[in-house]
Amino acid sequence: MELNHTHDASRRSWLDSANLAGTDFPLQNLPLGVFRRKGSAETWRGGVAIGDQIVDLAALQSLPGLQDRVAKAMRAAAVPTLNGLLDQGPEAWQALRHGLFALLQDGSLLERRVREALVPQADAEHAVPVRIGDYTDFYTSLDHAVNCCRQFGIEVNPNFDWLPVGYHGRVSSIDVSGQQVYRPMGQYRMDQGSAPVYGPCQRLDYELEVGAVIGIGNARGTPIPLATAQQHIFGLCLLNDWSARDIQTWEMPPLGPFLAKNFATTLSPWIVTLEALLPYRQGWMRAPDRPQPLDYLHAPANAAHGAFDIRLEAAILSARQLAQGRKPRTLTHTSFRHQYWTLGQMIAHHTVGGCNLRPGDLLGSGTVSGPTPREAGALIELTVSGTQPVEIGDGEQRGFLEDGDTVVFRGGCEREGFARIGFGLNYATVMAAPAF
Amino acid sequence: MELNHTHDASRRSWLDSANLAGTDFPLQNLPLGVFRRKGSAETWRGGVAIGDQIVDLAALQSLPGLQDRVAKAMRAAAVPTLNGLLDQGPEAWQALRHGLFALLQDGSLLERRVREALVPQADAEHAVPVRIGDYTDFYTSLDHAVNCCRQFGIEVNPNFDWLPVGYHGRVSSIDVSGQQVYRPMGQYRMDQGSAPVYGPCQRLDYELEVGAVIGIGNARGTPIPLATAQQHIFGLCLLNDWSARDIQTWEMPPLGPFLAKNFATTLSPWIVTLEALLPYRQGWMRAPDRPQPLDYLHAPANAAHGAFDIRLEAAILSARQLAQGRKPRTLTHTSFRHQYWTLGQMIAHHTVGGCNLRPGDLLGSGTVSGPTPREAGALIELTVSGTQPVEIGDGEQRGFLEDGDTVVFRGGCEREGFARIGFGLNYATVMAAPAF
Repeated sequence: MELNHTHDASRRSWLDSANLAGTDFPLQNLPLGVFRRKGSAETWRGGVAIGDQIVDLAALQSLPGLQDRVAKAMRAAAVPTLNGLLDQGPEAWQALRHGLFALLQDGSLLERRVREALVPQADAEHAVPVRIGDYTDFYTSLDHAVNCCRQFGIEVNPNFDWLPVGYHGRVSSIDVSGQQVYRPMGQYRMDQGSAPVYGPCQRLDYELEVGAVIGIGNARGTPIPLATAQQHIFGLCLLNDWSARDIQTWEMPPLGPFLAKNFATTLSPWIVTLEALLPYRQGWMRAPDRPQPLDYLHAPANAAHGAFDIRLEAAILSARQLAQGRKPRTLTHTSFRHQYWTLGQMIAHHTVGGCNLRPGDLLGSGTVSGPTPREAGALIELTVSGTQPVEIGDGEQRGFLEDGDTVVFRGGCEREGFARIGFGLNYATVMAAPAF
Repeated sequence: MELNHTHDASRRSWLDSANLAGTDFPLQNLPLGVFRRKGSAETWRGGVAIGDQIVDLAALQSLPGLQDRVAKAMRAAAVPTLNGLLDQGPEAWQALRHGLFALLQDGSLLERRVREALVPQADAEHAVPVRIGDYTDFYTSLDHAVNCCRQFGIEVNPNFDWLPVGYHGRVSSIDVSGQQVYRPMGQYRMDQGSAPVYGPCQRLDYELEVGAVIGIGNARGTPIPLATAQQHIFGLCLLNDWSARDIQTWEMPPLGPFLAKNFATTLSPWIVTLEALLPYRQGWMRAPDRPQPLDYLHAPANAAHGAFDIRLEAAILSARQLAQGRKPRTLTHTSFRHQYWTLGQMIAHHTVGGCNLRPGDLLGSGTVSGPTPREAGALIELTVSGTQPVEIGDGEQRGFLEDGDTVVFRGGCEREGFARIGFGLNYATVMAAPAF
């Protein structure tokens, strides 16, 4: 995949809101989601974000004069999950992007017809855009690892240097932005050595992550080599890996997190395609003072399959702030480029033992933290396990999350000479633990 | 659910092979699977094992004179996955069992018609019988935990006494008995402190487990109480949780097993319903010298929602033994009744934080080991990490698995006055690691 006319920042849409400075969804982005009109009983179907509107692919699929492969891709996406589009492969994804780019570009002869297929984003509700077969969460930020381990007085485990540590997550509780997240009940210990107690989680946290949707799978027993690993990704979104720290600390040894994570995972509604993100891809290089990866994880230095420079923000809005219409105060400013392991390395490692990925599978990057304190992507780091609360504005402070808090993530790419590629919002609200 | 006429051991089938002593599939069992004729391009569909035959539910669904609810359950099961039948709920499952019992019983007026719907088991091949949404593997045998920890010179983690430790597993690589399992490539260390190497797994193992298929789910945020937890299970099967011990040791801290497990999981083809297993249900009691569970995991002592006494066996057949038609020598004789935590406790714990289960989800019990050495359900225990190889017959020994080895599990329930309820075979063969 190479830069092409769809990355040209000088191209504009006939839709004014797509040309506004700072929009997440200019003509050059065209991320995919699944939506319907809010509160309606309409069928869920695929849509593409442009400015403050959604192009309804179900409404557009019968447009006369479409190229066959564009029409075919639209039909596959005009249903409640995008898996059929994923199955058509990268040429179809590109055909759809390029077809929509032409239709939405200033001067398109079909503007009037396409306008009829627009739904305002403000009037829409979203569903998880793909049927997810398996969800894998990684732990690939060295800064996050160091920050967390320091609090337990331990060293980062030596395997961190050698492989992207990952574990399997829960699919059933993945939902889309706007979700209500019940504070989990569970077991934890008030101090080490005592018997556990049962109660509502006292240390509820978020984790600011990037999610990757697999577009092309592999057969069981056939690993995906690093050189082509990134081509297996359909696109990226923002992911909140909600975490119950007290439950996690107690349950984690020896088999990893379970109830501390499986009560909820929140995705942003839009999947930003890898083609849209091409201008933000970086070279890869392992610092010479760190162990160099084994061959199957060793990318050629400075090759174009390194990290993506996606700027990420996290904020908390209390119930009171939300009611008063306050703007969230950003607590975290970081970038996905800080991760120690790349998405390509995660895929190469995931499959090296023969495990098969399927289209629609979801990978989480693990918490994205950067080297400075305000680049930490979780409260456990920002507040040093709750001992140093952060100001969330309007005189309120947080050590961990309280009932009624709304966690808001934003993300986007910016680079001189290129259009901003935004991810939209990922937000969800903490509800009191159900009485039980 | 209570004992009824379908548990009456004196009832016989008109099919002779169902009445033979020692059959896994008498009239009182009636487990469900998904099959087609071997090597054919037939549609996969549900079937029920009886003696050495399969009742083809697709062929039987149009039988005149069936009760409506029996016909409805058959139609739901006459397709490539049993999820539609699960969705119909326990009354439908019972209607199907009782309807088939009547049709297969000696004296049925429909014998001739039902005979036309039989397919010999020897002529069939199987698929995974349900579309699995999520797979969770537990670690609930105290004997297994003690055996494994002893080898690393560590104590069993204190949380073992308080909760059924579990972690999320991989769905994509679950297959059915008869599977070929590629030896995984991966990272491991030759000795502690050294840098890892990359190569084929040197310590490939099996884990003898029981699998539970969830039949009724729960809403997110609504835990399943222990008192009714067992009612959420559709049925049980045998599960091989293949494990790469060298990869596992290196990758496991801190987030648990990943590549060490996700290359393959093998299920037996038949799901034995909970109703068939009723006579083998035991009372529950926690030994008074052990910590008593927290309330949400504390069953009334001796209530009938304890363990199931399912006798389990594991064996290895080398490629040479297989070629010579040898019978496998059983290495492990144990019972599922030994587990420290019950299936009901696993479900109550799994959902206590609000995680939702869905029909078709799979739970693995964790390795089933008993208190004596020959009751250990994995080679790492049986051979003390490979240092004390076991005899597999014909002069061959194993520390861990070799390429070409076929691992064979059997299971069944036996009790005076009741019919044997067997699980059929779970077998799969180890293939050399793919060149990469």
